[in-house]
Amino acid sequence: MTTPTHATPEHGDRQTAVEEDLLQRVLDSFSGCDDPRLREIMEAVVRHLHGLIREVRLTEDEWRHAIDFLTQVGHITDDTRQEFILLSDTLGASMQTIAVNNEAYRNATEATVFGPFFVDDAPAIPLGGDIAAGAQGEPAWIEGTVTDTDGTPVPGARIEVWECDEEGLYDVQYDDGRTAARAHLVSDEQGRYRFWGLTPVPYPIPHDGPVGRMLDAVGRSPVRAAHLHFMVTAPGLRRLVTHIFVDGDPQLAIGDSVFGVKDSLVTAFERQPAGTATPDGRDLGGKEWSRARFDIVLAPEDIPDTHH
Amino acid sequence: MTTPTHATPEHGDRQTAVEEDLLQRVLDSFSGCDDPRLREIMEAVVRHLHGLIREVRLTEDEWRHAIDFLTQVGHITDDTRQEFILLSDTLGASMQTIAVNNEAYRNATEATVFGPFFVDDAPAIPLGGDIAAGAQGEPAWIEGTVTDTDGTPVPGARIEVWECDEEGLYDVQYDDGRTAARAHLVSDEQGRYRFWGLTPVPYPIPHDGPVGRMLDAVGRSPVRAAHLHFMVTAPGLRRLVTHIFVDGDPQLAIGDSVFGVKDSLVTAFERQPAGTATPDGRDLGGKEWSRARFDIVLAPEDIPDTHH
Repeated sequence: MTTPTHATPEHGDRQTAVEEDLLQRVLDSFSGCDDPRLREIMEAVVRHLHGLIREVRLTEDEWRHAIDFLTQVGHITDDTRQEFILLSDTLGASMQTIAVNNEAYRNATEATVFGPFFVDDAPAIPLGGDIAAGAQGEPAWIEGTVTDTDGTPVPGARIEVWECDEEGLYDVQYDDGRTAARAHLVSDEQGRYRFWGLTPVPYPIPHDGPVGRMLDAVGRSPVRAAHLHFMVTAPGLRRLVTHIFVDGDPQLAIGDSVFGVKDSLVTAFERQPAGTATPDGRDLGGKEWSRARFDIVLAPEDIPDTHH
Repeated sequence: MTTPTHATPEHGDRQTAVEEDLLQRVLDSFSGCDDPRLREIMEAVVRHLHGLIREVRLTEDEWRHAIDFLTQVGHITDDTRQEFILLSDTLGASMQTIAVNNEAYRNATEATVFGPFFVDDAPAIPLGGDIAAGAQGEPAWIEGTVTDTDGTPVPGARIEVWECDEEGLYDVQYDDGRTAARAHLVSDEQGRYRFWGLTPVPYPIPHDGPVGRMLDAVGRSPVRAAHLHFMVTAPGLRRLVTHIFVDGDPQLAIGDSVFGVKDSLVTAFERQPAGTATPDGRDLGGKEWSRARFDIVLAPEDIPDTHH
């Protein structure tokens, strides 16, 4: 990574002055903004936008291409397809926003992208229940504990889990209104949880639009590493939005298309040959299955300033 | 203007490492791109996008607002309304692109924004003709010369001119298919040109959409300083896209909403009381009029590298 500067020897002092004077006039135009946070953000947007144009010496043709690209992103976006979020995801902007807002804290579990497929009011299941509700895929037993960063168990934590089926599709991507492979459960008095889900599989993000064409043009895969989503909430503790990934998934080496992977979230899904006894005695009808352990550590809601 | 840095004392080394590792992984994802220019641009986009998020410590709510804003910009954009161009214009990005691609060169006339209202194949008028074609407004006599930077007259230069009427509307903004207040003419053997147009008036850019709401939120005016557009082409010389502005226009002090003003383009439109004799003997029926002189200097098509 190189760090270009604007005032380079290739451009004369006069040209540099023209460009910097323009930038300053645009920045000054926000001086009447009476919302200091909005002003701060708009000034930063302008500095980076102008910095980008000046660094790459953007041509007028390239500017037109950028306008056309954004127009296409806008036009494919509707109530069920959010191409701007896909764009943010594939440029790592969503993940960087997560990083900024979920600072690493001691041994707390790391956060990752929320994704577009969460649904409020997913059904409740008891501990040990099955989230599949008809979704096809290999059964996976997932269990663990919820604690705070001192190791104290957190009883009553609400754990939302959701994932795709073996076709790589979430329930909301079918048009039959099904609810499947998503649920919520509550940790017990010792902070423990357990449920049946599906062994996660890799799947591509929607890539038949402008973002897919961008990925293709730069030689990138649209595929997300296999994962299972978690959102965990408990009073007084920071909400955790994360995934677990599958150790050994070849997509981990190729690269997750939205940069959601953190090493600490890569989890062993241990292969269980057909006929292996299940933890709760459930009869899987001769199917193979897997099991994974994911211990969740929640940060305090208000991170003390002294942690650095 | 302050220049924030990312690795600040407010954020711990561990947090900084998390953010920089993520940025590096996103940059690395373009390593398979076999178009070096596309790769350069995408890497710069990513560096600036991540820099923005990290500098302002963008919240997840603010990220959602940004996604919503871009979605609105996309949805209002159609064949006749280009809100992404308005956004680029109002953030000074269009003007910065013009600046980068039209480097100041000796005494050459400065360029400014093209705007969305140019139309190919505008009617030809003779020297001294009237571009108004029924557009209402105060008559203005505009004359000048076209030369190269050595002062040599440029005969046969094609001069396209276009402007709004006294209501602040261009012909294409009416739905009756009219062609008015736009034309092209050709400089004579001495490089001279002259025509009747309209004294320019200020007008707002379309501001009933998300860009208008943004301007309102930051306390900015949507109004453009009064101007008359020129595009001048001649063989062997750099195409000039520019405006002339009206000396004394109060909007010059308030600020042009798209940052198109350059001091060198502010032109005296001298007031001519009703009844003042016109340069070509035309009878204006007792109307007031104005006159302006704009001498155009075209840069060479290929700017020598030695000019710095």
